[in-house]
Amino acid sequence: MPKVKITDTILRDAHQSLIATRMRTEDMLPICEKLDRVGYWSLEVWGGATFDACVRFLKEDPWERLRQLRKALPNTQLQMLLRGQNLLGYRHYADDVVREFVARAADNGMDIFRIFDAMNDLRNIRVSIETVKQSGKHAQGAICYTTSPIHTLDRFVQLGKDLQEMGCDSVAIKDMAGLLTPNVTAQLVSALVSELEIPVFTHSHATAGLADMCHYKAVENGAAGFDTAISSFSGGTSHPPTESMVAAFRDTEYDSGLDLPLLQEVGFYFREIRKKYHQFESEFTGLDTRVQVNQVPGGMISNLSNQLKEQGALTRMNEVLEEIPRVRKELGYPPLVTPTSQIVGSQAVMNVLGGKRYATITNEVKHYLQGRYGQALGEISPQVQHMAIGNEEVIKCRPADLIPPEMEKLRKEIGPLAKSEEDVLTYAMFPELGRDFLQQREDGKLIPEPLEPPNVNNANGHKAATEFN
Amino acid sequence: MPKVKITDTILRDAHQSLIATRMRTEDMLPICEKLDRVGYWSLEVWGGATFDACVRFLKEDPWERLRQLRKALPNTQLQMLLRGQNLLGYRHYADDVVREFVARAADNGMDIFRIFDAMNDLRNIRVSIETVKQSGKHAQGAICYTTSPIHTLDRFVQLGKDLQEMGCDSVAIKDMAGLLTPNVTAQLVSALVSELEIPVFTHSHATAGLADMCHYKAVENGAAGFDTAISSFSGGTSHPPTESMVAAFRDTEYDSGLDLPLLQEVGFYFREIRKKYHQFESEFTGLDTRVQVNQVPGGMISNLSNQLKEQGALTRMNEVLEEIPRVRKELGYPPLVTPTSQIVGSQAVMNVLGGKRYATITNEVKHYLQGRYGQALGEISPQVQHMAIGNEEVIKCRPADLIPPEMEKLRKEIGPLAKSEEDVLTYAMFPELGRDFLQQREDGKLIPEPLEPPNVNNANGHKAATEFN
Ligand SMILES: [Co+2]
Ligand SMILES: [Co+2]
Repeated sequence: MPKVKITDTILRDAHQSLIATRMRTEDMLPICEKLDRVGYWSLEVWGGATFDACVRFLKEDPWERLRQLRKALPNTQLQMLLRGQNLLGYRHYADDVVREFVARAADNGMDIFRIFDAMNDLRNIRVSIETVKQSGKHAQGAICYTTSPIHTLDRFVQLGKDLQEMGCDSVAIKDMAGLLTPNVTAQLVSALVSELEIPVFTHSHATAGLADMCHYKAVENGAAGFDTAISSFSGGTSHPPTESMVAAFRDTEYDSGLDLPLLQEVGFYFREIRKKYHQFESEFTGLDTRVQVNQVPGGMISNLSNQLKEQGALTRMNEVLEEIPRVRKELGYPPLVTPTSQIVGSQAVMNVLGGKRYATITNEVKHYLQGRYGQALGEISPQVQHMAIGNEEVIKCRPADLIPPEMEKLRKEIGPLAKSEEDVLTYAMFPELGRDFLQQREDGKLIPEPLEPPNVNNANGHKAATEFN
Repeated sequence: MPKVKITDTILRDAHQSLIATRMRTEDMLPICEKLDRVGYWSLEVWGGATFDACVRFLKEDPWERLRQLRKALPNTQLQMLLRGQNLLGYRHYADDVVREFVARAADNGMDIFRIFDAMNDLRNIRVSIETVKQSGKHAQGAICYTTSPIHTLDRFVQLGKDLQEMGCDSVAIKDMAGLLTPNVTAQLVSALVSELEIPVFTHSHATAGLADMCHYKAVENGAAGFDTAISSFSGGTSHPPTESMVAAFRDTEYDSGLDLPLLQEVGFYFREIRKKYHQFESEFTGLDTRVQVNQVPGGMISNLSNQLKEQGALTRMNEVLEEIPRVRKELGYPPLVTPTSQIVGSQAVMNVLGGKRYATITNEVKHYLQGRYGQALGEISPQVQHMAIGNEEVIKCRPADLIPPEMEKLRKEIGPLAKSEEDVLTYAMFPELGRDFLQQREDGKLIPEPLEPPNVNNANGHKAATEFN
């Protein structure tokens, strides 16, 4: 019987999506004994934002978190999200850094590496995949899902085949924006499953309220598993509730076999934990189906709304929302995900506020059009390219081919502040932040940002409907 | 193409489930113009709790609400939930009251009557169905869904056939507790659709987070439509979000055809409205999958928890949860819905707190065992029956057969306080409350319960995840 495999994102994407990635290790460890007994396929525990938040706000060593979780979860596979050649940082790294990073992550306990490139330029994830395989770990190639005239079923299937060819142990469809519908998921998964020999997983945010139905259809069409978030950190910009998905498949041929009563205990645990982080709750994390109409991810809209507010131009939002698809088309239809979402979004804001389109062009768009992020799947507008970079040469090779080895240089730069290769990599990911962190540690001055006191309990307990029908 | 038919419960079940049925007509009317343009199959606007809340708390004439909604929604079918021979009250009424009530509701603008009996004793809904048909309106027979050894697929199909035979224009599966799973829904709907000629609808609460998947599978298996709630009043003990369900079926053969951007505007409208009622929010209305494990509806658990708290016995909750299935079995496996949920729940509490089972027996259980609510589908425990009512005779006929006509008596009792037949019926539904209401109206002293001032806006708008993947 093909038991469905469930990855709970509670320790990474769920709190990243709902409370700005602020959950602390001290709130994870007490529940690990139970999490470890649930029977998950994996727990997602690491990614760019968790690494960043650890160093920036929580003053935790992210590597130490990984080691602690590894120890506390001896029976469960740990999973991370890796941005290919970007690793967990915001630029392309030299291959030696990528190799070192993956090897260190594997060594510290990571089992499954979900690897993606924001452009779906698979050259940018080749070295990561190779190194994961060399480390004897599970390499999962992720396809960023998006919609556009060129993002056909065939294109996605071709990406899946390429990932398989590159040695991936599985493929994930990564729907960061909640664009998938159940029907499209069924077609996409079915096509991938019939063309691939490796298992297919789905990752879809519940932003538009469709992800649970998408997962259901995915499994019916041959998907091996999908991502969830424990109920108290589920829904909206996070993931469908683990308990519900487990209940949905109970007593069917796809039964996950996970322990539902135990999951319910985990859910109640995190419900209490969430209260501790109330200052990070946002009105932008709830259910919002607008992405299904305008194809602009909710996370982007909230960023744009802040950007516009700062410039006193919130009333121009609709124009920006109309400009985004145009910019995206001119840039060759990149999927909208970090960092392409910012690249497209900021340029769209400039195009609207500047009065004339591309009167000002961001550096990121220039780099993008120089090919420094990789190659877009669609055609780049020659006019826009010319406006941005004139006759400058465009990089045709894999961007990292132009980056000489840099581990040695990084080691030297950070010097004795780094006590380990992991420290060097922390510095590599976030040069300023990482150095500050290591310096603070050296000085014994790692002070996490303060948490506001809990809200006065205004729960009443007497207002539930007394009648239900 | 079989367009899926959507009923939005925002004006009845959604606010009943989430804010104790407190939404006022003044907050409904301003959005009716938009609601009316959406293209719904129907809007559910009336039911027992709305009627009760109007009279008890809001000091609104529920009939006047109906007339106002009718006027404001000229292009949309209005739907109500009717408890068969109980109408919207808490006892069985004589047939002449049932006939008058249904006729008045039809006359005041009701189009679709969803009619159920808590015991699934169809004798209790016969007169309602007949009268709806005589009024030229749509009679929808509802089957209360529950699980038990005797609630087999065949039993449900038989109920559906009986409802068709009785003249129903459609059948609804009514899953008030969120017990359905997608797989069971598929089987149940498929069986009903293949055996019936009338359309099948589904009503399932999102309590366990499964209702959207259930509806999806229902439609795939031939259901004509289902119930939703606009996003800002969706989820948890309410219904799946309308916008999401519309998006789920867009561009498929089941496309609802509803206007999604317009629905999004409606959603934002009600998001603001909901803030006005914050004092009625409850911690018991969120997602909770426990019903999928212990089969006890969430609404019942919150009632029980209040009951136990008052008696300082909250620690006995688990015993009560284990006692409920036993009591339910001894009573012949009634579905747990108002009023059977209270009947079973209160007796279970007594059985646990009393030390000895059935040492004390509630009057409701006695009436139940006398057959005054109708006939259970399962076998009644003879021991329990004997303990409760000794050798008293058990009613075998339809309970209402023993009730003589009572409209005339009601008219006399309420006298000149009633200015219309509708007033008499308001009094009939809630003798004390209704009289008070009519008296207050007479005295010009209808004062709605006060609403607490809005919460200080602690939304921050800056905390959304800046990174999403
Ligand atoms: Co309901
Ligand atoms: Co994600």
